[in-house]
Amino acid sequence: MIASARRRPAHLGLLAILGFLLTPALASAQLISFPKQELTDYTAQNPFDRLPDGRPKVPDGLIERARGLSSEEVWAVLQEKGYNNQYADGFQVLHPGKTMVGRAFTVQFMPLRSDVEDVAKAKAKEHGVSRLTNQTAIDMLQPGDVLIVDLFGKKVNGTIVGDNLFFYVMKATHSGGLVVDGSIRDLDGISEIDMPAYFRAVDPTPIGNVMLTGINVPVRIGDVTVMPGDLVVGDREGIYFVPPQFVQEVLDQADETHIHDEWTKKKFDEGKYKSSEIYGSPSDPKLQQEYKEYLKRRLDEIRKQRSSR
Amino acid sequence: MIASARRRPAHLGLLAILGFLLTPALASAQLISFPKQELTDYTAQNPFDRLPDGRPKVPDGLIERARGLSSEEVWAVLQEKGYNNQYADGFQVLHPGKTMVGRAFTVQFMPLRSDVEDVAKAKAKEHGVSRLTNQTAIDMLQPGDVLIVDLFGKKVNGTIVGDNLFFYVMKATHSGGLVVDGSIRDLDGISEIDMPAYFRAVDPTPIGNVMLTGINVPVRIGDVTVMPGDLVVGDREGIYFVPPQFVQEVLDQADETHIHDEWTKKKFDEGKYKSSEIYGSPSDPKLQQEYKEYLKRRLDEIRKQRSSR
Amino acid sequence: MIASARRRPAHLGLLAILGFLLTPALASAQLISFPKQELTDYTAQNPFDRLPDGRPKVPDGLIERARGLSSEEVWAVLQEKGYNNQYADGFQVLHPGKTMVGRAFTVQFMPLRSDVEDVAKAKAKEHGVSRLTNQTAIDMLQPGDVLIVDLFGKKVNGTIVGDNLFFYVMKATHSGGLVVDGSIRDLDGISEIDMPAYFRAVDPTPIGNVMLTGINVPVRIGDVTVMPGDLVVGDREGIYFVPPQFVQEVLDQADETHIHDEWTKKKFDEGKYKSSEIYGSPSDPKLQQEYKEYLKRRLDEIRKQRSSR
Amino acid sequence: MIASARRRPAHLGLLAILGFLLTPALASAQLISFPKQELTDYTAQNPFDRLPDGRPKVPDGLIERARGLSSEEVWAVLQEKGYNNQYADGFQVLHPGKTMVGRAFTVQFMPLRSDVEDVAKAKAKEHGVSRLTNQTAIDMLQPGDVLIVDLFGKKVNGTIVGDNLFFYVMKATHSGGLVVDGSIRDLDGISEIDMPAYFRAVDPTPIGNVMLTGINVPVRIGDVTVMPGDLVVGDREGIYFVPPQFVQEVLDQADETHIHDEWTKKKFDEGKYKSSEIYGSPSDPKLQQEYKEYLKRRLDEIRKQRSSR
Amino acid sequence: MIASARRRPAHLGLLAILGFLLTPALASAQLISFPKQELTDYTAQNPFDRLPDGRPKVPDGLIERARGLSSEEVWAVLQEKGYNNQYADGFQVLHPGKTMVGRAFTVQFMPLRSDVEDVAKAKAKEHGVSRLTNQTAIDMLQPGDVLIVDLFGKKVNGTIVGDNLFFYVMKATHSGGLVVDGSIRDLDGISEIDMPAYFRAVDPTPIGNVMLTGINVPVRIGDVTVMPGDLVVGDREGIYFVPPQFVQEVLDQADETHIHDEWTKKKFDEGKYKSSEIYGSPSDPKLQQEYKEYLKRRLDEIRKQRSSR
Amino acid sequence: MIASARRRPAHLGLLAILGFLLTPALASAQLISFPKQELTDYTAQNPFDRLPDGRPKVPDGLIERARGLSSEEVWAVLQEKGYNNQYADGFQVLHPGKTMVGRAFTVQFMPLRSDVEDVAKAKAKEHGVSRLTNQTAIDMLQPGDVLIVDLFGKKVNGTIVGDNLFFYVMKATHSGGLVVDGSIRDLDGISEIDMPAYFRAVDPTPIGNVMLTGINVPVRIGDVTVMPGDLVVGDREGIYFVPPQFVQEVLDQADETHIHDEWTKKKFDEGKYKSSEIYGSPSDPKLQQEYKEYLKRRLDEIRKQRSSR
Repeated sequence: MIASARRRPAHLGLLAILGFLLTPALASAQLISFPKQELTDYTAQNPFDRLPDGRPKVPDGLIERARGLSSEEVWAVLQEKGYNNQYADGFQVLHPGKTMVGRAFTVQFMPLRSDVEDVAKAKAKEHGVSRLTNQTAIDMLQPGDVLIVDLFGKKVNGTIVGDNLFFYVMKATHSGGLVVDGSIRDLDGISEIDMPAYFRAVDPTPIGNVMLTGINVPVRIGDVTVMPGDLVVGDREGIYFVPPQFVQEVLDQADETHIHDEWTKKKFDEGKYKSSEIYGSPSDPKLQQEYKEYLKRRLDEIRKQRSSR
Repeated sequence: MIASARRRPAHLGLLAILGFLLTPALASAQLISFPKQELTDYTAQNPFDRLPDGRPKVPDGLIERARGLSSEEVWAVLQEKGYNNQYADGFQVLHPGKTMVGRAFTVQFMPLRSDVEDVAKAKAKEHGVSRLTNQTAIDMLQPGDVLIVDLFGKKVNGTIVGDNLFFYVMKATHSGGLVVDGSIRDLDGISEIDMPAYFRAVDPTPIGNVMLTGINVPVRIGDVTVMPGDLVVGDREGIYFVPPQFVQEVLDQADETHIHDEWTKKKFDEGKYKSSEIYGSPSDPKLQQEYKEYLKRRLDEIRKQRSSR
Repeated sequence: MIASARRRPAHLGLLAILGFLLTPALASAQLISFPKQELTDYTAQNPFDRLPDGRPKVPDGLIERARGLSSEEVWAVLQEKGYNNQYADGFQVLHPGKTMVGRAFTVQFMPLRSDVEDVAKAKAKEHGVSRLTNQTAIDMLQPGDVLIVDLFGKKVNGTIVGDNLFFYVMKATHSGGLVVDGSIRDLDGISEIDMPAYFRAVDPTPIGNVMLTGINVPVRIGDVTVMPGDLVVGDREGIYFVPPQFVQEVLDQADETHIHDEWTKKKFDEGKYKSSEIYGSPSDPKLQQEYKEYLKRRLDEIRKQRSSR
Repeated sequence: MIASARRRPAHLGLLAILGFLLTPALASAQLISFPKQELTDYTAQNPFDRLPDGRPKVPDGLIERARGLSSEEVWAVLQEKGYNNQYADGFQVLHPGKTMVGRAFTVQFMPLRSDVEDVAKAKAKEHGVSRLTNQTAIDMLQPGDVLIVDLFGKKVNGTIVGDNLFFYVMKATHSGGLVVDGSIRDLDGISEIDMPAYFRAVDPTPIGNVMLTGINVPVRIGDVTVMPGDLVVGDREGIYFVPPQFVQEVLDQADETHIHDEWTKKKFDEGKYKSSEIYGSPSDPKLQQEYKEYLKRRLDEIRKQRSSR
Repeated sequence: MIASARRRPAHLGLLAILGFLLTPALASAQLISFPKQELTDYTAQNPFDRLPDGRPKVPDGLIERARGLSSEEVWAVLQEKGYNNQYADGFQVLHPGKTMVGRAFTVQFMPLRSDVEDVAKAKAKEHGVSRLTNQTAIDMLQPGDVLIVDLFGKKVNGTIVGDNLFFYVMKATHSGGLVVDGSIRDLDGISEIDMPAYFRAVDPTPIGNVMLTGINVPVRIGDVTVMPGDLVVGDREGIYFVPPQFVQEVLDQADETHIHDEWTKKKFDEGKYKSSEIYGSPSDPKLQQEYKEYLKRRLDEIRKQRSSR
Repeated sequence: MIASARRRPAHLGLLAILGFLLTPALASAQLISFPKQELTDYTAQNPFDRLPDGRPKVPDGLIERARGLSSEEVWAVLQEKGYNNQYADGFQVLHPGKTMVGRAFTVQFMPLRSDVEDVAKAKAKEHGVSRLTNQTAIDMLQPGDVLIVDLFGKKVNGTIVGDNLFFYVMKATHSGGLVVDGSIRDLDGISEIDMPAYFRAVDPTPIGNVMLTGINVPVRIGDVTVMPGDLVVGDREGIYFVPPQFVQEVLDQADETHIHDEWTKKKFDEGKYKSSEIYGSPSDPKLQQEYKEYLKRRLDEIRKQRSSR
């Protein structure tokens, strides 16, 4: 879709050269600033490396393993830790059945107000950034990112991308994904592109009447405070934002849950037991023993298989 | 999903032995009691046998025939009888296009209130029932049942089953089905299991903050008073609860409707008629005659076919 | 579904003979009248021929081309013209991914009020029309029409068609389509019929408690004033009603947009550019030149291909 | 509020002279036309005189009596007649406790569409009407009218009046009233003006993005088909639109109901009876007799009192 | 309002004689039965006497004291006890500012289903109860009761009372109050009667299409399981249902809260302190001391005043 | 209400001493920081002095004059300037009819997340701030402030104040006002305190499960980006946030509007004119002249009156 292009000439050639240097520059140009140091301070429990822009970098290997996660498995660990506000739902899901996994790259918009936007633009120009739009943020996406956008539920003119930019995001993030508390356009075109996406609505209008107020700042999506670098896990039900410090434990525990489910269904399939004899845990000591052995064997298999890759 | 298992150790070995004996015991243990005699009295028009727990037993053969029903065909008979409150909709449908048919097995929950639940649990224990949870009811399901659950529209902690128990229900009811005025969890896992289900929402939390108040008692689902043993018929639109005394007539009339639809579309397909010349009934006496003969012939064929099975 | 047939005997044999002569007769019989002259006056900008009933006749060739349109492409032209009220959404879409295109045939219902309906019926009878129901309108549909129905969002008894009449509409309009600000019934049956449809709800009841108040009169669907003969374009998102005078321009501009999208994605696929270097328009003069040449070449190809058909 | 004034210069001096002659002129100028003859035909059961514009004229005396009506009393008669679609609710009520009574003067707007509006304006000009706005209709209001406006639930730019025009409507209708399926502005100012009003919302914007499509045409308000000249009765709950032919009966029956309520409460006040001994009708023959005599005496008193005015 | 009277002749003379004997009789006649023994068992923690029908009888003196309670004060005690499901809101409040206090008298309706209702009526007749309607329950109300009605949110035909029966309830309960998860009619009339009431909607239709299924059984109102005899406390915000065993503690603690609020505002009024120096508790030891003395003195005063009545 | 006090001991004695020094300290302690310099930059168009915390200080005299404003008068100027996102509605209004006017003091909360909050608290402690709660912000309020709180629409545990703190806010701001996109508690108590307030809901729970993330930062309320120091104007309809640079013009133009309304109603009161002869502007040159003179005379009177105070 080309519509918005006509009215918004853009001469951002140098942007490509600036690359990831953009973030510090933008940090002082955006209304809601969150400098790299702040980001580092507020995600101090991150056990992994960081991306050049300061975000925690959940390792690629763990991201791959996370593709097998479901919302419930994340819930189990996070509620034990007392993190009850990490789940958002109520979205339209573009490709149900295709799990979304990646690192949160956050973008925030607020309702347009010219006096404020003019200052932001002037500040951006001082730092060599000629335009402040959705593409300013989109151009900064990295492989493995999931684009998380706070457009405060806006439908009309709240469309973060159409099919062209959606295609770009897919290429840039290596099919990471998109979550927008707002809308998209070109649904017919977007439906044919193989990247997970979660949105509140669809509308034919382009984005407008808003101003870009933050890139990689803390944003609120539903009842979640999302921090840049959170591990994003989306399934048919909704989206979990996992603080990096819990990723390893979530994955390890999920292995056990998968095995437990395997065994439970196997026993149910035999047709000899009432549900409560088997699930949540076997009531009969012999069955308990059988399960323990099964769990151990399967865990060993999984680990062997994983390390052999 | 194993999450709830950890916090709720269960030693219900003897439950399996008790089998269908449970109902009478529970009848006095549950807040809303509905003894077998009451159930028999209030479903006195039932023309069929009864299950051991007292529910009317719509015969398996009729259940099979009912798989071809649509909501509209049920509506036609019930509104003639003056039964205008037997239809519920507004659900998420797990497998659109897969008709759900079976006998209503009802379960009721109410918001937790410890003073009441403590009494219920003590009464249950006196009758040898060590736990009052969703599994207490699920363990009692029979082949041909559809599990009907009143969880008063609860989403968070209103999840009657996850994928493990959904799998159990599928096995126990022989793919009967599930209707919950509440939610489910593990949608990704459940989507792969071949049993019809109707639910209001999906949530990652386990069931909680509720108490089991009745098994096979009259429950309200939307605008319907569901009686245990009702024939449940669910299609893409919604769910009909058919009192047993009307099942035969609904099915017989549906045969005629199927033939009428067949003939109507055949005539439309010829492209020679306006819709009102053919539908609802042919305006031309010759066409009326043609239809009558068609109807008779096809009814004969159907009956022959049916009896030859 | 035959249900409504039983209670509504119909003797409309002569209707088939009357054919398109019906409209003038009905014009004076319906509560909201909109005679052929008025229709012609109010659609004076129509650049095409007219149907016998006075509606603008967007040519079949353009309707075919319009199958490639998306909501956004229509939006682009119409907003430039200052037409901001031509889009309606919030419907259930029967066959997502199947574009709906055709000429608007409008029908209006209002809540039943016997004193008014009795007069309308008497007037109709004077003009030889024996019945005023949904089928009165449906019998007038032509190939290429999309049936647009104002049933003011009614769900119960707001069902414009079941599967039999839906089948008829499909045959009569050559799979044109249906838009109803109201409901349908027999969703299971309708799902198997290959015609696009947009509706607010599904219900097992037949149409009732309403009166037919206008055929091919201006109607409101959502925030749109629909005029008979508008080009209707429906995709996964919603429905555009295009005044005939803009159809050619919408289609021509869509050709350019398709090429622009093609080129944009091709460049993104190369992985060498930031999104803002390419989209909305290339920032680098060399790329601009490349795009211009690509556009010219592809436009030529498309036109050649089109004229060779 | 003057805001809209600046942008819309108006030179409608002659309009005042034209007076009620306007309706016939406008009838051909408006999109939805409903000439005086049609209005007369469709309200043929009206037992009263007619206003110069053709609307039934429920006599002033009956309007005065109707001030004592409640929604329930209207309901009782209309449901007996089979008129189940004459009640609308869901409005914000400006002055709860102040009953609204008067003759329906209807106005219809539809979403703006320039090609249509330009034709309407040209037609209006031919008939000497220089402007088609909300004020075109408002200037035609008569004493005893209630202004009924279909603005299809529009909030932003759906404001039929602000405080200045509300004041004018109050003067012109002698405090008749306003019902708008849309919004108003200047609520602070309007709250101080003593005329009943029912509206869906309040907004600071002036009316816009709509076109006037009909004056004194049949309109839909909620689930009601309102005919010009209907008796409008609004209380705290909602609004009844009474066809003129039922006004006398509604009022006569209300007299009996008032007396019945008087007597019922008197008996309850004595504290000697269970509710079912007295209400709906006394169970004891002696009480029945007492009530009959009370009814007769009070009816006589009321009639005497009424005729003596 | 007399409307329903005409269609429902009633000969319930003997009902008045039966008096409170009704409950046991009805217990076996109603679909959802909850015999006196069950009620006693499930409210075993009740520290007070019981009413003849078995409900806990919170003493009149405590009910009087409870008039000074607010929702927050009840919340404070109940959440400490782990009772988080005792509050319901989302009602229209008839007389904001007038606190509602009394003992819960519960009534349950379910959607009508003739086969079930016929049995219930026959059972009732066997026990000498000739009718099963809303008045059957209303006739059993006692001074100090608040009528709690589960009409499952029904608006049309979900009207538990009009102004006549509302007046009766006011007299019978000594202005106790009404809570209906459903609607009322005759709002204009009801507004003039001095009894607190909470309802979901208002409608002109009488109650219908439902069957009475329980009197003084456990009912669900919003997210609360209400037990007969609960202390009901309603303010501007919503309604608390207090189990009898917590009433004394709620009241005692409320005394302290009132004094605390008194003192806090007095200190704020002096204008010398930041909010956090005073509230929740004084930060300065001297202020703490001052508060302690104030609390003691005022508690003494209140108790003296109370005992002197 | 004391409930929250018990669980949150507070020793903030020194806070009172710190006074307005708090802001810079907190600026670095809060998740969303907005240092004084940023605030100054982004409100550079402010024509007035500034408060010690950097907010624009609309003069007290203009605030007083603003008490006569209505939403529509603000709308008129702001839409001319192209500021279309300065209005928020959909609130419950505590004291309808009492205009709210003052300077925006903004506070932002986000869903609780311990890893983030722990860092914020540690940073706060470093700066001598021992607690980060709603009271931290409330203690900083100045006379003339309106407290604007972003609690993202939270109802349960989204209660910014109960009656004690509401009383404090009233004292500290000299009855400035409160706007919360969230809830309040103790509505009964708050209703008796004479300060305007706008809130989404009421709930008995105290604030919880959130973290304080910003004081005097840009916040979003509905569709408005609110900047600290905006002039807040609330009436019965909703709330306008006026950038300081437009305050003078809004007030001057409102004077003219008041006079225009005065004159318009006076003319309507004479009963000689159609609405369009007078409103928006007089059509007759003589009337125009009359109005001009009236306007001039009244403006003079108003100014004289104002300067004489």
